[in-house]
Amino acid sequence: MTKFKQINGTIASPKGFTADATHAELKFQKLDLGVILSQVPAAVAGVFTTNKVAAAPVLVGKELVAGGLAQAIIVNSAIANAVTGEEGLTNVKKTQRLVAEKFDIDAKHVGVCSTGVIGKQLPMDKIALGISKLSAENGHATGFSEAILTTDLVKKEVVYEVELGGQTVTIAGVCKGSGMIHPNMATMLGFITTDAKIAQPLLQSILSEVIETTFNQITVDGDTSTNDTVYVLANGLAENTEIVAGTEDFDSFKSVLATVCQVLAKKIAADGEGATKLIEVSVSGAPNDLDARMIAKHIVGSSLVKTAIFGADPNWGRIISAIGQVAPFEVPDIELTIQGDLVLLHSTPVDFDQAVLSEKLKEPSIVVQVELNQGEHSGTAWGCDLTYKYVEINALYHS
Amino acid sequence: MTKFKQINGTIASPKGFTADATHAELKFQKLDLGVILSQVPAAVAGVFTTNKVAAAPVLVGKELVAGGLAQAIIVNSAIANAVTGEEGLTNVKKTQRLVAEKFDIDAKHVGVCSTGVIGKQLPMDKIALGISKLSAENGHATGFSEAILTTDLVKKEVVYEVELGGQTVTIAGVCKGSGMIHPNMATMLGFITTDAKIAQPLLQSILSEVIETTFNQITVDGDTSTNDTVYVLANGLAENTEIVAGTEDFDSFKSVLATVCQVLAKKIAADGEGATKLIEVSVSGAPNDLDARMIAKHIVGSSLVKTAIFGADPNWGRIISAIGQVAPFEVPDIELTIQGDLVLLHSTPVDFDQAVLSEKLKEPSIVVQVELNQGEHSGTAWGCDLTYKYVEINALYHS
Repeated sequence: MTKFKQINGTIASPKGFTADATHAELKFQKLDLGVILSQVPAAVAGVFTTNKVAAAPVLVGKELVAGGLAQAIIVNSAIANAVTGEEGLTNVKKTQRLVAEKFDIDAKHVGVCSTGVIGKQLPMDKIALGISKLSAENGHATGFSEAILTTDLVKKEVVYEVELGGQTVTIAGVCKGSGMIHPNMATMLGFITTDAKIAQPLLQSILSEVIETTFNQITVDGDTSTNDTVYVLANGLAENTEIVAGTEDFDSFKSVLATVCQVLAKKIAADGEGATKLIEVSVSGAPNDLDARMIAKHIVGSSLVKTAIFGADPNWGRIISAIGQVAPFEVPDIELTIQGDLVLLHSTPVDFDQAVLSEKLKEPSIVVQVELNQGEHSGTAWGCDLTYKYVEINALYHS
Repeated sequence: MTKFKQINGTIASPKGFTADATHAELKFQKLDLGVILSQVPAAVAGVFTTNKVAAAPVLVGKELVAGGLAQAIIVNSAIANAVTGEEGLTNVKKTQRLVAEKFDIDAKHVGVCSTGVIGKQLPMDKIALGISKLSAENGHATGFSEAILTTDLVKKEVVYEVELGGQTVTIAGVCKGSGMIHPNMATMLGFITTDAKIAQPLLQSILSEVIETTFNQITVDGDTSTNDTVYVLANGLAENTEIVAGTEDFDSFKSVLATVCQVLAKKIAADGEGATKLIEVSVSGAPNDLDARMIAKHIVGSSLVKTAIFGADPNWGRIISAIGQVAPFEVPDIELTIQGDLVLLHSTPVDFDQAVLSEKLKEPSIVVQVELNQGEHSGTAWGCDLTYKYVEINALYHS
């Protein structure tokens, strides 16, 4: 087992990182502009939305990752800079230059993220003024996790420590949102910093793998935003022996990164718009991991399953139907467990105490386990219930 | 143009068809068992759910269509006979025999459909008693459209007349539901009768084609039921010259059948659980029909689009994001019109009167038009808004 532990801290806990946040008047009163800075250029890995209508910051972000190094990530909330054409791209480049000048770093090493209204241009005068107020030294690091929020109710931040190559390595993550969580607002954003020493291509390959079983396995409303982005910055200041593939350190680092991503992903699912419950669906007995994950994600995304869980109804028929809708193979031997109670065995209903299970479904965390008996592979997905509040949040807001 | 007109009538309007309904005590008080009968065996075409957890009636229904002939369709509501194993299959066969004995027809020519709770066996004593009360002569034909309903608020029936091969041909359709529209309840069912003379293979090929642009283009909650079925029975009693491929009659018949299916499909979408508005999304300028239909259906199924329309919010960003999420090609030149108002041109926001458009979005029928400028193909999909009532219906019911 990898020895790692959760510690108190912020996105600026890993050696050589600082963070700050300010109110740039994009929102009414709240913090709305934040920056993460590394003392030295860090290896940067990134994954981005698959939405064909990708926002300007995503397009420029791909260039950043191709370059392999980042020293700052600047993030604004309130405006997504999506569907903004050439002007949108120009504004991303201008933001990079403003951050570079302010902190005396290379503009090519500045990542830019935005989240908020689609179709509106960034007010560059406000952005410029905001950047001028940010500090590289006495930063308000906890403010960063606040500045990136839109309709989120809670801040989402987690820090771990792990021993690697003779040194204590710290890895910190912060994120916001879930799917397109607000009317006209968008985006899941995740930022992870670490002082681990690791080459960029390896960091990218680990991130790309880990993302598939963590951030990509959550759903709130089935809508993929135009701005989704996760960055990992590794600046090497822990001075551990460089992590290389196939070693124990590699496995440990990957495990911690996966844990950070999973903890953050679950925080997003639990804070989905209008949610009262976190739902975890595990599927085992699939012919391959991909199908297991796909089926788990489809179940947790089903409006009928989500409303049943909101109503504390052990409605297993909806879960079975959701499986049948997407399984690319026959499923004649399903075993289904809800909150630890077996409700279906060999695809045949089992007697269970409806009232007892309904009580268990009032808990804030719901676990559904599906055994397909068609193979040895498994996958998990996370989501939340569908409530009146979700409809209210998304219908009453006017763009 | 094909000359056809809508007339008043029922599923029993085409020559040689009768229909009846009764209360078999499956529901508390309402009609819950109905039958459609043809004086002579009719060519039968059918399409069924793609859900891997197909209900027993669907499995037997595929045999019916393979046989090519049907003389009766018996339908019960309240119990879906899905996830019921061998006993479920035995009960379908038993129902076929009971109907065959009652009406002196061949059991192989009896179609059986069920809709309702998953995982419960049919009470065969009640079914038998119900069948004994059904009549082939003085049937309650309008009752049939009522007996098949679950949470539907309105009956859905339509009849057309068309001149074919020197005769007046009548084509009548009735349907219920939409997706899995009720907690533990299921199913879209559609039944179409016609006295047209047409060979079974041709009828099946027309139905399979027409279904793709009509019933398969509606969505209420994105969940495909275990019991979805559409049957067309053509008994030839209009004595028209047999319809063969490549003729004007063929085109006319296909066009009427498509109209019947489309009218019924829109009725289902408008009566989706909790719906206050029918939403129609048309996508043009796609490289092929399939992509156009897929994009249209994805837009109309997006929870964020559905809630925005419930809230009368002209939130075009959500529509654009939904396109980008599923388009398998680049979409740099989108033109978007909502209720006749242009809101986006060349993928660039256009000034429009937000207040005026918001007023137009309070109408009961909403039309969204998307021009992708990537080809010459188009497709349409129908759905409804997502409301508090939808959550209520699906959360408060207890299985």
